[in-house]
Amino acid sequence: MQALRFHGQKDIRLEEIDIPTCGKGQVKIKPAYVGICGTGHEFSGVVEEVGEEIDDVKVGDRVVVQPIIYDGTCGACKAGFINCCDKNGFVGLSGWGGGLAEHIVLPRSAVISLPDSISLEVGALVEPLAVAWHAVNMSPYQKGDSVLVLGGGPIGLAVIQSLKVKGCEKIIVSEVAPRRKEFAKQFGAHYVLDPTKDDIVSTVREICDGQGANVAFDAAGVQAGLDQAILAIRARGTLVNIAVWEKAASIQPNSLVFRERRYMGVATYVQGDFQDVMDAIASGKLRPEAMITRKISMNEVEEKGFKTLVHDKDNHVKILVEVCP
Amino acid sequence: MQALRFHGQKDIRLEEIDIPTCGKGQVKIKPAYVGICGTGHEFSGVVEEVGEEIDDVKVGDRVVVQPIIYDGTCGACKAGFINCCDKNGFVGLSGWGGGLAEHIVLPRSAVISLPDSISLEVGALVEPLAVAWHAVNMSPYQKGDSVLVLGGGPIGLAVIQSLKVKGCEKIIVSEVAPRRKEFAKQFGAHYVLDPTKDDIVSTVREICDGQGANVAFDAAGVQAGLDQAILAIRARGTLVNIAVWEKAASIQPNSLVFRERRYMGVATYVQGDFQDVMDAIASGKLRPEAMITRKISMNEVEEKGFKTLVHDKDNHVKILVEVCP
Ligand SMILES: [Zn+2]
Ligand SMILES: [Zn+2]
Repeated sequence: MQALRFHGQKDIRLEEIDIPTCGKGQVKIKPAYVGICGTGHEFSGVVEEVGEEIDDVKVGDRVVVQPIIYDGTCGACKAGFINCCDKNGFVGLSGWGGGLAEHIVLPRSAVISLPDSISLEVGALVEPLAVAWHAVNMSPYQKGDSVLVLGGGPIGLAVIQSLKVKGCEKIIVSEVAPRRKEFAKQFGAHYVLDPTKDDIVSTVREICDGQGANVAFDAAGVQAGLDQAILAIRARGTLVNIAVWEKAASIQPNSLVFRERRYMGVATYVQGDFQDVMDAIASGKLRPEAMITRKISMNEVEEKGFKTLVHDKDNHVKILVEVCP
Repeated sequence: MQALRFHGQKDIRLEEIDIPTCGKGQVKIKPAYVGICGTGHEFSGVVEEVGEEIDDVKVGDRVVVQPIIYDGTCGACKAGFINCCDKNGFVGLSGWGGGLAEHIVLPRSAVISLPDSISLEVGALVEPLAVAWHAVNMSPYQKGDSVLVLGGGPIGLAVIQSLKVKGCEKIIVSEVAPRRKEFAKQFGAHYVLDPTKDDIVSTVREICDGQGANVAFDAAGVQAGLDQAILAIRARGTLVNIAVWEKAASIQPNSLVFRERRYMGVATYVQGDFQDVMDAIASGKLRPEAMITRKISMNEVEEKGFKTLVHDKDNHVKILVEVCP
C-alpha cells in the first residue's frame, strides 16, 4: 500500500509498504481525511476489517481515531487520566503508523464511531477540537468568566469555539497574524488584541472589570505571551497551558503568590471528550467546517501541505489530506 | 517610647520615638511577644486604647495582629481575597510600624481577640501558623492524600502541623539541616528525606503508590527543590508555592502538560484563617509551643535575634522578642 513516511523533519516520501494485518482486539481502518499537524494523528476513516473478539464495531462503520495508546493499568489510567498514562503512546508517534497511509491497524480503544450526521471531513477536526474542549473542561472556567486566549492557530480557534458552546461572553484573543485575527473574530472572539501594538496586560484588565481575566489559555507557547498572561489574569485566576514548549520557561513565582494565581498544564483528552465534541457538532452548537482551509491529495502533502504550514501557516487553519475520501 | 528601627538590612537600632496617637477606627496596642521574621509582623499584645467608633474591642483585651492592610473596595477584596488586595499593605512594611515597639496603632481590621486559653507567647505563633493553614486550605489537599513538604523551616513545620490537624497520614519532608529534620519528625512528618542524599523524585514516588505525592508545598523557594517537586507529584497533582522567591524560576511547561500538573501561588491568609488556627490551638489539635526555641528582650534583638537567624537559623524555629510581656 502507499504510505507517507517521514525521513527526518523535512523529508517526506510516498512509499510502497506492506499492508498491516489486523490482530486480536484490533481494528483495520481505511483513513478518509487526515488533518496535518506534524504527525498525522487527526483523522477519520472507514472500518475495513475487525480482529478477533471485536463485536461492537463492524466493517463499513465510519469512525474517528482517538490516538492515545494507554495501558489501562497504571495509577493514572485507573483514575481515568488515560492522557497521563505512564506507558503513554500516541498513534503516529509510537509505532502505530499514522493516518497518512491507505490502511492502518489500531487497538479497539482508539476507534470511536462517527455519527451519521457528521461528514468524514469534519470528522478529521474532532481530534483538535477535543484538545481544546478538554482544556476548557479541565480549567476552572465557568459561565460568566472572562477569558484570554493566547494564539489564534488551530488550537486557539478550537478553544474559542469550545468557550462559545459553554456560553462565554468575554473572549479576548491575543494574536499577531492578520488572517488569524480574522479567523478569531469569525469563530466568535469578542476582542482581538495584537501584542505588537496593544498593551495586553492593561487592556485585558480594563476589559475585565479592572481586574483581569478569570482564565487564560496559552495556545502559543512563547515566553513573552506567558509573562503577559500571568499578569493579565486576576487574583486567583488560572493560566492553562495547552502549548507544547521546546524549552524551559521563566516564571516569577512571586507573580503567582501575590495574587494567588495558578498555572496548569493540560494534555490531549480523556474518554468522553471526543463524544462531547461530536455531540456538539451534531446538535449544531459547534460549527467547525470553516477551519478546513484546504484539501489536498496524498501526493501533494509535501508541496501543498507541510511546506504551506511552514511558509504560509498564518493563512491556514487546517489542511486536510484526502487519503481515501 | 522605645522602638527598634531598621536602617538597612543589618543595621537595627533601639531608638526613642514619639508614641503614636490612636485615631478614629483604630486600636492602640502594647505588643507582648513578637516573632522574628525580618519585619516584626507576627505578634500578640494587649489593647491600651481604642479610637472613636470602636465598640467591639476594649482596653485590656488580649489580641493577636492580622497584619494585612486592605482597602475593602477592590475586586479582590469584594471577592473576599483581602490578601490579594490591589492596595495591599502589611503591618511592619507599609508605614504602620511593627511589633518591635512599646506601642503600635493599627486599623480595627488588623486586631483579633485571643481566646483566654491561649498564652500571649503562643499568640505570637498564630500568624505563621495561619500562613500554613491558609496554604493547606487553598490547596486541593483532601484526607487520604500524600503530601511532600519542601523545607523544614518555620513555615514548613507549620504546614506539617496544619496537615496533621487535617488528618494527613503521609507527610514527606525534604530538608537538609539535621536539627530541622528532627523538628519535622517531632511535629509529625512520616518521612524525612535529605535532598543531598536521597533521590527525592524516585523515593517520593515509591512511598506514594508508585505515582508520586498528590500535593507538594514549597516552603523553601530554591530551583532544585522546585524541579524535584514537580516531578515528584503524580498526574493532576498540585505544587503549592508558599515561599517568597527573589528571582525568577525556570519551569518546563511540558512537565506540567504531560501529567496535567498544577503550580499555584498562595499568599498570607484571609478572614477566618486566624480564628481557625486559634480554635485548633484552643482545642488542643494544634500544639505549636515547641516552635518557640528562644525568648529574648528588645535590647538583645540584634545580637541574639537577627544574627542568630542568619548564622544559626537551622537550630531555631521561632525566636520571640518579649516587648511588654
Ligand atoms: Zn496507564
Ligand atoms: Zn482591596
